[in-house]
Amino acid sequence: MNAYKKQMKVVMLFVVIVFFVQIALCQNFARKEVKIPDVLGYRVLKCDFHTHTVFSDGDVWPTLRAEEIWLEGLDAFALTDHIEYTPHKDDIMINYNRPYEIASPLAKARGITLIKGGEITRKMPPGHLNAIFLKDVSPLKTDKWEDAIQIAYNQGAFIFWNHPGWKAQQSDGIAKWNKEQEELLKKKCLNGMEVVNEKEYYPEVHKWCLEKNITMLGNSDIHDPANMAFDFAKGEHRPMTLVLAKENSEEAVKDALFNGRTVIYKDNLLIGKAEYLLPIFENSILIKNPEVVLKGKERVNVQIYNSSEINFELTLDKKPEDISAPEKITLYGDRTVMLGIRANVKETPEKKETPEKKDMTGKKDIDLNYKVKNLLIAPEEGLPITLKIKAEFEKKD
Amino acid sequence: MNAYKKQMKVVMLFVVIVFFVQIALCQNFARKEVKIPDVLGYRVLKCDFHTHTVFSDGDVWPTLRAEEIWLEGLDAFALTDHIEYTPHKDDIMINYNRPYEIASPLAKARGITLIKGGEITRKMPPGHLNAIFLKDVSPLKTDKWEDAIQIAYNQGAFIFWNHPGWKAQQSDGIAKWNKEQEELLKKKCLNGMEVVNEKEYYPEVHKWCLEKNITMLGNSDIHDPANMAFDFAKGEHRPMTLVLAKENSEEAVKDALFNGRTVIYKDNLLIGKAEYLLPIFENSILIKNPEVVLKGKERVNVQIYNSSEINFELTLDKKPEDISAPEKITLYGDRTVMLGIRANVKETPEKKETPEKKDMTGKKDIDLNYKVKNLLIAPEEGLPITLKIKAEFEKKD
Amino acid sequence: MNAYKKQMKVVMLFVVIVFFVQIALCQNFARKEVKIPDVLGYRVLKCDFHTHTVFSDGDVWPTLRAEEIWLEGLDAFALTDHIEYTPHKDDIMINYNRPYEIASPLAKARGITLIKGGEITRKMPPGHLNAIFLKDVSPLKTDKWEDAIQIAYNQGAFIFWNHPGWKAQQSDGIAKWNKEQEELLKKKCLNGMEVVNEKEYYPEVHKWCLEKNITMLGNSDIHDPANMAFDFAKGEHRPMTLVLAKENSEEAVKDALFNGRTVIYKDNLLIGKAEYLLPIFENSILIKNPEVVLKGKERVNVQIYNSSEINFELTLDKKPEDISAPEKITLYGDRTVMLGIRANVKETPEKKETPEKKDMTGKKDIDLNYKVKNLLIAPEEGLPITLKIKAEFEKKD
Amino acid sequence: MNAYKKQMKVVMLFVVIVFFVQIALCQNFARKEVKIPDVLGYRVLKCDFHTHTVFSDGDVWPTLRAEEIWLEGLDAFALTDHIEYTPHKDDIMINYNRPYEIASPLAKARGITLIKGGEITRKMPPGHLNAIFLKDVSPLKTDKWEDAIQIAYNQGAFIFWNHPGWKAQQSDGIAKWNKEQEELLKKKCLNGMEVVNEKEYYPEVHKWCLEKNITMLGNSDIHDPANMAFDFAKGEHRPMTLVLAKENSEEAVKDALFNGRTVIYKDNLLIGKAEYLLPIFENSILIKNPEVVLKGKERVNVQIYNSSEINFELTLDKKPEDISAPEKITLYGDRTVMLGIRANVKETPEKKETPEKKDMTGKKDIDLNYKVKNLLIAPEEGLPITLKIKAEFEKKD
Repeated sequence: MNAYKKQMKVVMLFVVIVFFVQIALCQNFARKEVKIPDVLGYRVLKCDFHTHTVFSDGDVWPTLRAEEIWLEGLDAFALTDHIEYTPHKDDIMINYNRPYEIASPLAKARGITLIKGGEITRKMPPGHLNAIFLKDVSPLKTDKWEDAIQIAYNQGAFIFWNHPGWKAQQSDGIAKWNKEQEELLKKKCLNGMEVVNEKEYYPEVHKWCLEKNITMLGNSDIHDPANMAFDFAKGEHRPMTLVLAKENSEEAVKDALFNGRTVIYKDNLLIGKAEYLLPIFENSILIKNPEVVLKGKERVNVQIYNSSEINFELTLDKKPEDISAPEKITLYGDRTVMLGIRANVKETPEKKETPEKKDMTGKKDIDLNYKVKNLLIAPEEGLPITLKIKAEFEKKD
Repeated sequence: MNAYKKQMKVVMLFVVIVFFVQIALCQNFARKEVKIPDVLGYRVLKCDFHTHTVFSDGDVWPTLRAEEIWLEGLDAFALTDHIEYTPHKDDIMINYNRPYEIASPLAKARGITLIKGGEITRKMPPGHLNAIFLKDVSPLKTDKWEDAIQIAYNQGAFIFWNHPGWKAQQSDGIAKWNKEQEELLKKKCLNGMEVVNEKEYYPEVHKWCLEKNITMLGNSDIHDPANMAFDFAKGEHRPMTLVLAKENSEEAVKDALFNGRTVIYKDNLLIGKAEYLLPIFENSILIKNPEVVLKGKERVNVQIYNSSEINFELTLDKKPEDISAPEKITLYGDRTVMLGIRANVKETPEKKETPEKKDMTGKKDIDLNYKVKNLLIAPEEGLPITLKIKAEFEKKD
Repeated sequence: MNAYKKQMKVVMLFVVIVFFVQIALCQNFARKEVKIPDVLGYRVLKCDFHTHTVFSDGDVWPTLRAEEIWLEGLDAFALTDHIEYTPHKDDIMINYNRPYEIASPLAKARGITLIKGGEITRKMPPGHLNAIFLKDVSPLKTDKWEDAIQIAYNQGAFIFWNHPGWKAQQSDGIAKWNKEQEELLKKKCLNGMEVVNEKEYYPEVHKWCLEKNITMLGNSDIHDPANMAFDFAKGEHRPMTLVLAKENSEEAVKDALFNGRTVIYKDNLLIGKAEYLLPIFENSILIKNPEVVLKGKERVNVQIYNSSEINFELTLDKKPEDISAPEKITLYGDRTVMLGIRANVKETPEKKETPEKKDMTGKKDIDLNYKVKNLLIAPEEGLPITLKIKAEFEKKD
Repeated sequence: MNAYKKQMKVVMLFVVIVFFVQIALCQNFARKEVKIPDVLGYRVLKCDFHTHTVFSDGDVWPTLRAEEIWLEGLDAFALTDHIEYTPHKDDIMINYNRPYEIASPLAKARGITLIKGGEITRKMPPGHLNAIFLKDVSPLKTDKWEDAIQIAYNQGAFIFWNHPGWKAQQSDGIAKWNKEQEELLKKKCLNGMEVVNEKEYYPEVHKWCLEKNITMLGNSDIHDPANMAFDFAKGEHRPMTLVLAKENSEEAVKDALFNGRTVIYKDNLLIGKAEYLLPIFENSILIKNPEVVLKGKERVNVQIYNSSEINFELTLDKKPEDISAPEKITLYGDRTVMLGIRANVKETPEKKETPEKKDMTGKKDIDLNYKVKNLLIAPEEGLPITLKIKAEFEKKD
């Protein structure tokens, strides 16, 4: 045993010791949960299907991505380094499966589902596509992009179009539907599209997903450390895809993706089908005093607690008949707000207040119909919701 | 009708208009809930039984106290202006019931229980005492303090000793138990004591409460606006008394106080009887993966979510037999933390890891016994708790 | 000496002791300075000329206003309770000079200039007007508003129109110039106008101030505690009037107001004459590397430090000839940002980069002409500024 | 030209476009300056001489370190990957000079001085040593550590002992001075020591540096992204070495290090020689009203503004004769605080206050002697400072 090897053995021993010292410190490493409720018997998994590491043009080692995902409250993610674009190749030996292999033990120890993927990085068309749930990424390095996609398809991958309106590939920032995409869709090789990528939202892609029944995705496409890209202290978060899955497993996520059970979460915005957004809203909201007494034209506050982390921005959709309610109100996340209502009474010349309509006495069910403008069921179209109240109308003493 | 009256009428009209304009803006006024769970079939009401207004030496109008209480997530409070000390009397007409009368409509509109009270403000002994649930505060202005207390008692008041170790009355900052207090206690005129007042905690008073079975209270004794005294953005909160009550009503709060069902909440500290603190801890904690597999001496993380806003600071009370667990760990509020454990195996010279004891195979129930040092069941004595895990021990591959 | 008096004497002694105890704690009470530089040989005093207390419809005792002013980094303020509107009069003895008398000792101890004022509170026209630098507020309580203003004028007051576009008095939220205002202006009884009141900005009033040479003011009109109205932790601040005064004294402030030396500071906006805004900008900005070498079309960063607390939002006003510079850039307050520039070179077919114009070699003075869109010299008109750089153009190696 | 090469060419074009798109976004990337003033005609450079990348056991690409350094307000740093410990070597081709080569262009573009270094990573003794200002790191990979150090010395390196009390190498956490260190010191091969490493401070090393005249260093030893290791939103910062240098250049930093002109900045602590700490304190402090009038025993506030980002924690060192001043006071960073003083007068039985000593009339220079307990000139020894005030003593009216 030569001197250097002996030295190394000692170094390794240090490493073991350090590892255990760090474990003790690491107890303090805490995960912030994403506060969006489960719905419809599914778990609402928080996922990011588009991330990079030093193995392509990212700035971080693969394990760090798993650590970030856990700390930020996500449940599953895919490592999707560029296949054709590897600027660090003078220093890093290219092996497209390594990011997954390196991050896998940590992800498992954290209870995070890690999905193997790769980004097919071509000029437009077809642009950039992610293939995830791959068995082996290496064969996707081909001359022709058509071959790469076919190989991914053969491995059972879920394939989606990344940032279709990316300015580097669409100078006007608006995605174009080409015959190449049409072809891929027909061959079941275009299973999803990024309606949201990093800081961008593509309304035209949103529309296509609804029309063509393609799964909607929102991903970070992160290259830097997450807390450099997002200011968590200001409440920022990475864009993510909420996946309605039976459990947190690769199979359940895959099933949900192929069946379109996703909602996109970007800034203070949720994007998805009404059938998913409505129960998310309803499971978030608690009307604390749903039964109120309205005396004359006195204002009464309905107190509403929103247990989610989203500020729901409501706009009155249809004026209720018997009462006045605010045109706009924001139900702040993790806060209780007052929604002030009062009976529509008129003052007589004798200053006695009377209900505007004769039958406005006794108890009555009141529907407050609002649209939630930041729960998007289509471009610029907010989710319609109803707040239900029981009101008892009384004359003022 | 003279010119001035006409003018005034118009002013009043403005006021009405302004009122409605402000209503619209006020929708944004949001309440932050205090995240401490209900227990034992009771609601855990967040209360402050010691507050001041401009009617004695406070800096704010009574309605503001009600607004603050709502915004800060409290459920009930008492206005307890000094009876004998009224430095604003050159400008304010003294009427000891006015603070309650003025704040009452707003408190009611917010769903807050407002309790009428007054602070009997005398030299030591007996020092300062609050009488709450009074019917009429005015008769308490008497020459002799004994009379004031008797009148409060006759009105059915709950009477408690304020800041017993206050340096202005106890130069060493340590409360003294005098014959006056003994006398009051015998006459059932000393129903509670402030173990916590503003920023101070009195361990000796804590001890007396346990020995003599007196209700423990923690109050703000606030004079300034609350957000001047406490930096909410840094997570500070006013000290409060948690009251285990059947509902949020004056009667239910009174019943709980006379029966000692209180816990004090100060900074990151809860002070109270184990019978109340234990269910608060248990209702706050969720072990996400209570069943773990321990291979060789591999570290496994038990993930624990704490839904309360308190950071529970745990210290290992008794080392478990079969596994290693951290000496100290903090379960951060609204966060998930990893508690890392591993089997107590030893390495043989042949580098094969084996359990230290023969019977350490198969599944086993593990009790992790910790003390929560910031849940105080007596001065410097943390609440003992147990985290229960099912472990399956396996050999390393 | 009867028992009660004896008691009181003891209470008073406590008060003295408490006072000194609090002094010790109060060392921690710290003032946040407003970071806007002095200019033109004047001190730039931070002032608020419109505040309320419990003596009219405010929620706080007068001393608290002085404390807030000091803590928030202001230098001078006026107490301007409503004269005609006193909703607390059942409890507070009305004396229009009392707020000033009560707050005066604390203001003095803090080094704050406190100005005596009152708000003439009438229907529109003339609406609400503040008279400040009054000697005695009481005589302003008159039947006719014309008399009140005349009395203020006779006392040498600075009189300004409050919130001219206030919705309670102008249902469309747009101020109207009436003959009453015209008359007051002629009589030198309308010396200033609130271009900004609380959260509102009135562009039409801004325009009138410029046309008619009336002093521009921005005030808080605060009724609540300041930290309830403004979220300081999020960087919010009360609207204020910056006064270019020779020193911090009542006389110097008065002189500046009568001579129109004011700038309004609202959110991230400064409003004022270019002659004041330009030196504020220039005294805030430091170009760290004003001499740069531009090789080929390589990007070079000019680093700019902004020592003020305002984020200057720059838009390119005129494209420079020889270089490319960003269309938009924000110079963040108390931050250094990179303004990236590069020479306008074109690539020849042989891939050699050459300057677009022959004479683009050697050193050259470059003027970067921007408009600062949040330094308003008129409604929607940003201040033009020039960043001066010396560039040396070189061929790429 | 085959299809793949053609594809690659297009990819490269995208990269160029993306680069320019990002430039536009990057304008918002802002640098927070470290607020510690220049002193003694030197610039006080903020430096970190111990950082890691993926090239040893760090988690980030070298360029990211340069970006972080700029954003956090530092001026110079060294990349010091482990030489003997390279856990990523299965994926990364080991070349000890590459981290420097990769990060160098970005550092230059940001105006940051990047220093080439390496960490000699051996068991204790001699433990871990950093060699910086190396010309070529590769030759330092030797069997014997003595050879590695000699090679570094021959290249003119500045060599310092890292984390001498690191628990992985000193189980009790206390550094030991061995004959190996003594030997190195004699040979001028031990030029500095880390008194602070990451979160640790070694008082025994602090003492040795003073006794043996060795340069004191405080470094981050960072492996993770900086904003994962430090919560900037809470005001945390990486530990750094403040270097008093003639300019920001490699030569000037080297000269300062070899001449011991350093101060360590850790949390809210500065550690260094009094000759450097005193001017840092004095250049940070402004007494706003250094001339005060003391009437009777009235309290007067001296207002002190601290322009640095450090909260100076003062403890009264010697009671002044003629006045009372607070025992403890914290001069908060970027805040103005009130230091309350009053004359030492006594009350006569006739209640007239008189100075305690006869000569206490007229103007007098007052020295307030404090120690700044968080400016450490030796272990547990705060820097003595004097606040100078001119007081005029008057009788109370």
